[in-house]
Amino acid sequence: MTNSDQDLELIEENFRDIALLESIASTLGWDERTGLPDEAGEYRAHQITLLSGLIHDRRTSPQLGERLSRLADSSVTTDPNSNQSVTIRCLQKDFLRHSKLSKSLVEAISNATVRGEQAWAVARPKNDFASFLPFLENILALRKEEAAMLQVGNQTLYDALMDQYEEGATVAIIGPVLNNLRQQLVPLVQRCAEAKNRPDGASLSRSFDIDQQRKLSRWIASKIGYQFSQGRLDETDHPFCTSLGPYDHRILTRYDANHFNSGFFGTLHEAGHAMYEQGLPKGAFGMPMGTAVSLGIHESQSRLWENMIGRSHAFWSWCFSEVQKYFPGTLDDVSGDTFFRDINRVEPSLIRVDADEVTYNLHILIRFELEQALLSGDLQATNLPEAWREKYTKYLGVAPTNDHDGVLQDVHWSAGLIGYFPTYALGNIYAAQLMDAAREQIEVVGNEDLDVQIRRGEFSPLLEWLRTNVHRYGRQMNPRALVEKATSKAFAAAPLVKYLSEKIEHVYG
Amino acid sequence: MTNSDQDLELIEENFRDIALLESIASTLGWDERTGLPDEAGEYRAHQITLLSGLIHDRRTSPQLGERLSRLADSSVTTDPNSNQSVTIRCLQKDFLRHSKLSKSLVEAISNATVRGEQAWAVARPKNDFASFLPFLENILALRKEEAAMLQVGNQTLYDALMDQYEEGATVAIIGPVLNNLRQQLVPLVQRCAEAKNRPDGASLSRSFDIDQQRKLSRWIASKIGYQFSQGRLDETDHPFCTSLGPYDHRILTRYDANHFNSGFFGTLHEAGHAMYEQGLPKGAFGMPMGTAVSLGIHESQSRLWENMIGRSHAFWSWCFSEVQKYFPGTLDDVSGDTFFRDINRVEPSLIRVDADEVTYNLHILIRFELEQALLSGDLQATNLPEAWREKYTKYLGVAPTNDHDGVLQDVHWSAGLIGYFPTYALGNIYAAQLMDAAREQIEVVGNEDLDVQIRRGEFSPLLEWLRTNVHRYGRQMNPRALVEKATSKAFAAAPLVKYLSEKIEHVYG
Repeated sequence: MTNSDQDLELIEENFRDIALLESIASTLGWDERTGLPDEAGEYRAHQITLLSGLIHDRRTSPQLGERLSRLADSSVTTDPNSNQSVTIRCLQKDFLRHSKLSKSLVEAISNATVRGEQAWAVARPKNDFASFLPFLENILALRKEEAAMLQVGNQTLYDALMDQYEEGATVAIIGPVLNNLRQQLVPLVQRCAEAKNRPDGASLSRSFDIDQQRKLSRWIASKIGYQFSQGRLDETDHPFCTSLGPYDHRILTRYDANHFNSGFFGTLHEAGHAMYEQGLPKGAFGMPMGTAVSLGIHESQSRLWENMIGRSHAFWSWCFSEVQKYFPGTLDDVSGDTFFRDINRVEPSLIRVDADEVTYNLHILIRFELEQALLSGDLQATNLPEAWREKYTKYLGVAPTNDHDGVLQDVHWSAGLIGYFPTYALGNIYAAQLMDAAREQIEVVGNEDLDVQIRRGEFSPLLEWLRTNVHRYGRQMNPRALVEKATSKAFAAAPLVKYLSEKIEHVYG
Repeated sequence: MTNSDQDLELIEENFRDIALLESIASTLGWDERTGLPDEAGEYRAHQITLLSGLIHDRRTSPQLGERLSRLADSSVTTDPNSNQSVTIRCLQKDFLRHSKLSKSLVEAISNATVRGEQAWAVARPKNDFASFLPFLENILALRKEEAAMLQVGNQTLYDALMDQYEEGATVAIIGPVLNNLRQQLVPLVQRCAEAKNRPDGASLSRSFDIDQQRKLSRWIASKIGYQFSQGRLDETDHPFCTSLGPYDHRILTRYDANHFNSGFFGTLHEAGHAMYEQGLPKGAFGMPMGTAVSLGIHESQSRLWENMIGRSHAFWSWCFSEVQKYFPGTLDDVSGDTFFRDINRVEPSLIRVDADEVTYNLHILIRFELEQALLSGDLQATNLPEAWREKYTKYLGVAPTNDHDGVLQDVHWSAGLIGYFPTYALGNIYAAQLMDAAREQIEVVGNEDLDVQIRRGEFSPLLEWLRTNVHRYGRQMNPRALVEKATSKAFAAAPLVKYLSEKIEHVYG
């Protein structure tokens, strides 16, 4: 056994342990959001804090750094594109990042965010931003401290945070793209508002038995390719997807007895995330080759299934009669076309997760701007509710009358996720690019239009295409390179705008 | 700060971490038995194995041993009955025990039992003892190896295992008591079989809507004093209770749509366990003063609530009309007295957890004898199904036709729990002693008979008595000393025999 072989083996062992500890922490996180007893929150925070300390120790041990340096200089990495080279490059980058952070800061952030999430869960139903504020201020201060330690080159503090979710993303690069997107979307929203024949969404606001919604969600998730033998579907306040191991990718949604969307589309969205995780190379779980490349790409998978498939005409020409059967009597007077138009209604609204595909990006832009202001110090957390209302009025023409539907609507900040929101808009952009390529290539291979398959309820060719062109690569390329390789096109927002324009043409005429 | 203070502080920190890691492992265990995805089992075993290694390191660090020795010789332990002395004595005993075991053995046992439980869960529904056998053989070999390392004085291998669950219990002490109990119970069983007017249990074998059973279980658990703010109630194949933290004591039961008992009495039983845990000193969670003293005492709490309260005439004279309301129409033709007699029907049967109070102890005796034979080598695991049938025929006059209802019925062996079953019989004995004392003392204090309170659905004086006389002591005394202090009586089986005789007199006339 050479020295390099030994280094590799010890590194793999180290990361196997890290993956185990992280997946254990994910299990505690899943448990926390599926019915943790009221009084158990504080001890749960201590448990997660201990784990994050153990993980940090293993991520930053000096021996790991030495081994990675030796390997980076060895013959193991002669071919820069080999799996081993990629792995060592990613691990070295991660190591340098983690080594910059003190263990006490890592533990403090872990503790602050577990408690922040708990405080948020209490504050939101009570519209009580004031009780959440000290937790948020603490989180912001700690994340700023972290950003200052991580900052490199001419990164702003905010760039340093974004980089963790989307490698290479900076305000300078993303800002103009999102602003440009906004300029193209505003006329679309306007066109919908002025159309003669507008869907009113009435077919969605009916009474949908929750037990039947549960069954429908299980059925559709399984139908599009989510594997229940490697996951489960549960309920929570704020839907999410989490991986508890290479064969355990769980999804959570929420049901509204009086509205169709949140349960059904929440399931499609989270299943899209989970199917990406289920498609990553199992043997490399916890290693770069077995890890999602970025949140933007992750979101591209969820939005693709939720919207580009789940809100398509082809999908509903197949699915509507099935849905009718799940709710006997409820949708008898509705046609598939009406339902399709209702789920594609464009209307400025308050809640991001319930927003339509067009205005959704404006919700993201608001958070993106507020986060930058919080990080730069231009905005104090205590003034967030006010700033929130101003931005909503300005960009969407609507403003919340309470914080439940305003600044408290998302779990992200309570969980310390700052710089994370912009990846949602990137996800939409990537998804549109990937769909164009998938359509083209599936038609060439199968000599059949993708929509024809969807109209038969057949999703495996599309999932297979995503597995082959996206999932299986792990972190082998950076997100933009991955999309370019899969699509043979440069990164651009134009496909998203084209897709949305066509959809609006179809729905609004 | 003196050296002793510093030693104490570091020891407390060490055990705080151990308690965190153990409660994390319990969380993974809970999750594993409430819907783990089919393919996720192997990775879950790796997670738990990693944790048990981390725990073992902290339980057996040489510094811990040195600190404990120093404290045992210091002025901190001058008063042998002080909390600190008790704590140090318990920790030192635990340390010596854990230090005898190699980390590799501890990890091997952990891995073998996680996989054993998974194999059992697959094997039982398929009646497939053969597929479970290699897992069981592996567990037995490892536990024997452990016993050989732990053995002290003239302990047998089996004694060394029992000691972990019930300090000081040996075959020499327990064997005669259980045999004696058997001799006294056999005529009672006989008397029931020969009685003229025997309950047939028909009122229990009806259709009980599972959703209503869930609601009833929540209601009754809360009514007797289980705090849902510090726990939750879920469903699983093999009911259990587990503590995930000082404020998180969860119970799990199973419902049978065609039988009343398993959901209702399973809930009472597990709630009894959980109420003990909820009554331990919170601040000492994970330390001896905050830990249950023994499994026998633990079982005394569950059996007391399940049987001595939950199957009493007083209880049903209050509860029956409530139960009727949960299942409209189902029990209209049944009287409270008939129901009381049906739930107290004595009848030799195959399944321990469904057994009546009298024959239950015979189920335990069978396992106790089989375990001893397995440990001594007189019995090979491969011959267990046959030996099982022989014992059942001999002691109960019935024998299973399949392993699902025979040797595969209990989860214990698959989880490595060997030497554990006898604590169930000890629990019955302790419970009868404690009930006698509680009755007497509650009547003196409240000037009211306990049964009068129960007939009003009032359980808090009894729970308060248990908290004061049992729960709050943690491991301060050994189990027998605790019972003697609480009851002012020597440890004896007579109260249990008396209680059962009176019950049978009431039910069978």
